[in-house]
Amino acid sequence: MRNRSQRFARKAVKVDHAQNMIMRHVLKLGCEFTSIESCLHRRISKPLFAKECMPHFRRSGLDGYAVLSEEALFATPQNPTCLRVIDEVPAGYTSSKQVLPGTAIRIMTGSAVPDGADAVIMFEQTEEYQEEGEISIRIKHKVSHGQNIAKVGDEITSGQLLIGSGSRIGPGQIAVLASMGYEEVPVFRRPVVGVLTTGSELISVGDPLQPGRIRNSNTYMLAAQIEQYGGLAIRVGTAPDDRDEVARTIYNALETCDMLIVSGGVSVGDYDVMADFFTTMSGNDMKLLFNKIAMRPGSPTSATVINSKLVFGLSGNPGACFVGFELFVRPVLLAMQGIESPDKQHIQAIITNDYDKGCPHDRYIRGQMTLSNEQVKVSVLEKNNSSMLISIQDANCIIMIPAGSKGIAAGQQVAVIPLPYETTMY
Amino acid sequence: MRNRSQRFARKAVKVDHAQNMIMRHVLKLGCEFTSIESCLHRRISKPLFAKECMPHFRRSGLDGYAVLSEEALFATPQNPTCLRVIDEVPAGYTSSKQVLPGTAIRIMTGSAVPDGADAVIMFEQTEEYQEEGEISIRIKHKVSHGQNIAKVGDEITSGQLLIGSGSRIGPGQIAVLASMGYEEVPVFRRPVVGVLTTGSELISVGDPLQPGRIRNSNTYMLAAQIEQYGGLAIRVGTAPDDRDEVARTIYNALETCDMLIVSGGVSVGDYDVMADFFTTMSGNDMKLLFNKIAMRPGSPTSATVINSKLVFGLSGNPGACFVGFELFVRPVLLAMQGIESPDKQHIQAIITNDYDKGCPHDRYIRGQMTLSNEQVKVSVLEKNNSSMLISIQDANCIIMIPAGSKGIAAGQQVAVIPLPYETTMY
Repeated sequence: MRNRSQRFARKAVKVDHAQNMIMRHVLKLGCEFTSIESCLHRRISKPLFAKECMPHFRRSGLDGYAVLSEEALFATPQNPTCLRVIDEVPAGYTSSKQVLPGTAIRIMTGSAVPDGADAVIMFEQTEEYQEEGEISIRIKHKVSHGQNIAKVGDEITSGQLLIGSGSRIGPGQIAVLASMGYEEVPVFRRPVVGVLTTGSELISVGDPLQPGRIRNSNTYMLAAQIEQYGGLAIRVGTAPDDRDEVARTIYNALETCDMLIVSGGVSVGDYDVMADFFTTMSGNDMKLLFNKIAMRPGSPTSATVINSKLVFGLSGNPGACFVGFELFVRPVLLAMQGIESPDKQHIQAIITNDYDKGCPHDRYIRGQMTLSNEQVKVSVLEKNNSSMLISIQDANCIIMIPAGSKGIAAGQQVAVIPLPYETTMY
Repeated sequence: MRNRSQRFARKAVKVDHAQNMIMRHVLKLGCEFTSIESCLHRRISKPLFAKECMPHFRRSGLDGYAVLSEEALFATPQNPTCLRVIDEVPAGYTSSKQVLPGTAIRIMTGSAVPDGADAVIMFEQTEEYQEEGEISIRIKHKVSHGQNIAKVGDEITSGQLLIGSGSRIGPGQIAVLASMGYEEVPVFRRPVVGVLTTGSELISVGDPLQPGRIRNSNTYMLAAQIEQYGGLAIRVGTAPDDRDEVARTIYNALETCDMLIVSGGVSVGDYDVMADFFTTMSGNDMKLLFNKIAMRPGSPTSATVINSKLVFGLSGNPGACFVGFELFVRPVLLAMQGIESPDKQHIQAIITNDYDKGCPHDRYIRGQMTLSNEQVKVSVLEKNNSSMLISIQDANCIIMIPAGSKGIAAGQQVAVIPLPYETTMY
């Protein structure tokens, strides 16, 4: 009866217990340097602190004249202050002259404010005129001390934290890195994740359909999920239908991968070779974490640790495979790249349709979250069965339907896990 | 006075009018094919319709026995139905036999249901026994017609829309593409966007600071924004401080780029060469769209069309540059890749802090949106001046503060434009 009894006798663990067990085996990754041109979406591997102030000089906020404020504190159109323009400074240059009483220096946005001056007045509030062959200005508005000058360190003070470890690098981080001189950026090495598929029913994407066969889609879907969270996906191929050959394939893959995901073969079927693998193999170098989870879909989801590396067995059903990845693999990938508590990312939303399928276990279904009129709303996507994949593309969250006989009614609050796959937002 | 009067005489247009003008000049891009392995985050260039049903055969939803339901409609533990097992079918294979009265065929999850059978009963609800050297099963639960069988086309019917044009490819789209046999995926060509920076105050990222000088950060920030929205950024370099030389640089760049962004030099300063360029140059091949917008920050934001290609002049101030990109360049990039109405992506949120800076024009400031207890909340980030860049990394939205003398108070509703840069969510 092919280990059948062992397969049925598995002990289910709770979702958060499974997550906690997994998180104890997160591999610490080294870090590396990447050029600022190629660091988008990588994760910073150590907290970066400012070595300089920004601005590092007194900077003019606009195009105008650097003046002594006390000379024009009470300037009005009737009683203007007149000053001789003694120099002009393009941005990027500094004046060798000092602003003394009776004088002004013409400066540009971003220029260093010359010594002596303590205020900048904008062009639009002055009038230029010529006197004795020299250019002067008439100031008709009162000027206050410090006006239009960014002080040294106004934006960033030397020593302050710029970017925390684990931060995902976007345009804003890149602007900070560039302005602070990071040509090379310290980032976590990308986790290398192998993807192995099982199932004699699988044919290649390029193959024409055959009776009883389907094209392999989990490999590509999982690779995309891995890349979305910063990993490098390695396609290990399709596993043979033999437990020992599968074991060899897995051990081989782990020589080059930091982690391995196997989809399919974890259930109670006769050819569910992964179920055999997880359930019956153990030893000094291999430790089973769990081979059943109290949830739907994906209850046979399994995980083991081989030579300190995590191996996941996800359902071969595409819907269950997708959800299993987000619940169990995503937190590991993020933790490998410096994110603390990556498994606590749920929020509350109002569900907009009934879901009346009761279930003795928590159910994790694909949902579409919308932000409308200040409210977070979520709807259950159609075609949500574990075997179905068509709705995954519209999912930007996973909705948790708590265990119970009744499901949940429209208008109730539900916990959802947001996903980074855009649907209605860009 | 260096065209000073012309610069001050610019006519401001409203933000939505500027967006509408720009959208009339979106360049239509061709499409290309990319392999399914490398299509993540690209955009589908034409609607894809199903050529096959899914499943394309009657598929078993679990591991069990294919039976005739009418034989076990009333099966109970006291009155079980007994059937002889005449074949077993691994997933991917089909049985040459037919399920006839008194018989059953053992099948696996995903297997084709053999002819004759109209229901599948799970292993767990049967008992195997041997009789006269043959394997039989005892069914103790009632079986209903169609149970555990996915009908042909249950998930996808031939001819239905699979993925719409412009859809961004994520794991869900990839699963659909793979299962439907798309080894090569039709996607829009990536828009090639040149980035040119002006400003004699700029030094390279690797250079040590000098008095009055700052490192160029806008080039890298803009390149990251371009890539975020599917574009290919080309760094054109730093423009000379001469109008005609800048013009030559721009015309050269447009030979290889679909669009060009210039940062800096658009204001009223003496060396604001881009202001000159936009304001004074025109001809058969160049048409100014606008050179001033009624908004803060970034009021001198400009756009022109040269030989049917858009050239944007964004503020050199990093905060204003960032916002200007999101408001005016992002919609164009998305429209080039098939998104309809990409400039209408605002939602409503509750602001959590006062913003009491009145302004005669609408103000667009960096915000952080959080989803908490079913509510969409947004807070104004500190260090939000147009010259500041440190807060950009924490911005996952732009808050629109309407024109008025009072700003806006905590608890009020504001319109926000969500951005795809993660902060609190992954």
